Amino acid sequence: MSPEIPIPEDGSPIEIDVWRGNLIESRHRVHGAVVDAHGGVVLAFGDYNAPIYGRSAIKPLLALLLVESGAADRYNLTDREIALASASHSGEPGHVDAVKSWLGGVGLTIDDLECGPQAPGTEAALREMYAAGAMPTRAHNNCSGKHSGFLTAARHLGFPTKGYIQYEHPVQQRLLGILEQMSGTELTGVPRGIDGCGIPTIAFPIANHAFAMAQMADPHHLPEARAAACHRILRAMTREPWYVAGTGRFCTKVMEAAIGKVAVKGGAEGVQMGALPEHGLGICLKAADGAGRAAEVAMGAVLRRFGVVDDSVAPQLGSVFEPEIRNWAGTVTGRIAPGSEARF
Amino acid sequence: MSPEIPIPEDGSPIEIDVWRGNLIESRHRVHGAVVDAHGGVVLAFGDYNAPIYGRSAIKPLLALLLVESGAADRYNLTDREIALASASHSGEPGHVDAVKSWLGGVGLTIDDLECGPQAPGTEAALREMYAAGAMPTRAHNNCSGKHSGFLTAARHLGFPTKGYIQYEHPVQQRLLGILEQMSGTELTGVPRGIDGCGIPTIAFPIANHAFAMAQMADPHHLPEARAAACHRILRAMTREPWYVAGTGRFCTKVMEAAIGKVAVKGGAEGVQMGALPEHGLGICLKAADGAGRAAEVAMGAVLRRFGVVDDSVAPQLGSVFEPEIRNWAGTVTGRIAPGSEARF
Repeated sequence: MSPEIPIPEDGSPIEIDVWRGNLIESRHRVHGAVVDAHGGVVLAFGDYNAPIYGRSAIKPLLALLLVESGAADRYNLTDREIALASASHSGEPGHVDAVKSWLGGVGLTIDDLECGPQAPGTEAALREMYAAGAMPTRAHNNCSGKHSGFLTAARHLGFPTKGYIQYEHPVQQRLLGILEQMSGTELTGVPRGIDGCGIPTIAFPIANHAFAMAQMADPHHLPEARAAACHRILRAMTREPWYVAGTGRFCTKVMEAAIGKVAVKGGAEGVQMGALPEHGLGICLKAADGAGRAAEVAMGAVLRRFGVVDDSVAPQLGSVFEPEIRNWAGTVTGRIAPGSEARF
Repeated sequence: MSPEIPIPEDGSPIEIDVWRGNLIESRHRVHGAVVDAHGGVVLAFGDYNAPIYGRSAIKPLLALLLVESGAADRYNLTDREIALASASHSGEPGHVDAVKSWLGGVGLTIDDLECGPQAPGTEAALREMYAAGAMPTRAHNNCSGKHSGFLTAARHLGFPTKGYIQYEHPVQQRLLGILEQMSGTELTGVPRGIDGCGIPTIAFPIANHAFAMAQMADPHHLPEARAAACHRILRAMTREPWYVAGTGRFCTKVMEAAIGKVAVKGGAEGVQMGALPEHGLGICLKAADGAGRAAEVAMGAVLRRFGVVDDSVAPQLGSVFEPEIRNWAGTVTGRIAPGSEARF
């Protein structure tokens, strides 16, 4: 950690280098911002006011409806289900079983999920499933916990469960309202698309994504129910990190190592978001080219910058923050590392 | 196709845009060159003199040793094996069986392969393998055909088969010599690394990779045995495109559609190379960030520029050159397309 190195002054993105042998084989550019709960920009690089889709990295924000509506209490959800509501899980047996059990408790089944089936993300889970003659289900979809959260909120609030992924459905409209308040942006008429799991994905600036996470990290300005929901979601994520991602995954490993100090969540196309409760800061990073590996290594650099990773946990995270590249025979052939200006 | 639009004059890379809804969600930069057999640069963009690892995209060049040494004739190899020697196959049953049969004909087994085991690249092949209680073998490795080619050449030339992936082994030294001659570069002391399958990978400029492919496409200046080997390898690739990649893959689809007009080969970290025999041109493209999807779409733009894809085959290739992005439920959520300056 070199806290003295300032923000790159020209507003250029930070670079993440992919080394093989003695050559940088590929190079990523990452835009990002770290913001406090008053909207102050603490650290920024690249086009940090560019609109992006936060993709799955905003799931902790989307879990607010489930918790603050009272749905989570009504159905006796534990940290595990709230972590799953904020998760992009790997579809390992433990994730799938927990989702099924949750839906059962709400009186629903996996047929009520409106995400498509997706194969598990680990070799072991894939092998186990196919060896048993089974096929991927909607519960295996990495977003099935988030969808279970939407269904649970819909049921609690008396909305129809069918069609809950549609932009016009009251669940999605409530979520839009939450995103507007948390991000401090007006989201009518902004670019939007459909996410990998079928729900709307809405574009707003990187810095406002970071601000939304800052409000989660430091929610004392927020209404009581929302502030309590922010605390509960971050606590659930950091207490049950395996349910937020899965075996060997970046978010899981970081939250396991830096217990309670950070909640991190990645999304497709190179998005990483994080909340630092002790600092009252929110982080949003976007790899320009959509590479998840770049966003992860950039998040590692930012977390080191803020001392989230100190000497006591650094050894556990070296392999995550500057990962080695190995070939099929297990030989180390390279590594991914922050470029010099990203070593804050 | 708009052949009038010139090379971007400022030497900037071309951009490949990843759309979701009405927003460019991610953007790639691709460097590249199209070169003729006299070394004339016909089209170039970005840092086309930057050194890159050609990775698996150079496999057609590496197959030269197998063919010109006489090994291919001695062991009665057909187009299928020569295509496999130039392949990054998907480890589908047909690929694996062909490799095993080839090795058997040379008196070797998959235990002689020095690449690591790799799971098949298609969901169907993966499911079939695990459902049968089997595990990935070295023959499943996408490079097993190339390795079989090295082993066959080693056997024919009287070299030890053991250690054939080492930089010092005579097979690798011969291959280096071939690369030097074909690329017109001196390869002593240049950056090098280890490839995903264990062999050395050597860095030299993008334009020289393109020149090497141009010499394959138009080998009339080359010694007779090498020229014949160039013809034979390109013919094998274009006649047996499934063996060069596999079901649904970019290289396979392009060569199936543009029969005989182009041999294309991708490599890890966003490399694409191609030979246009009718034009006597070679192509090399490198996505700066290593994204294969960007290199493929850029290759599509270059092939259209040179009329390789005319109206008769364009419909088959639209989905490959500007692929749709679908979510897990099969809904179209976006597309990948060349940026305006890449629509040559």
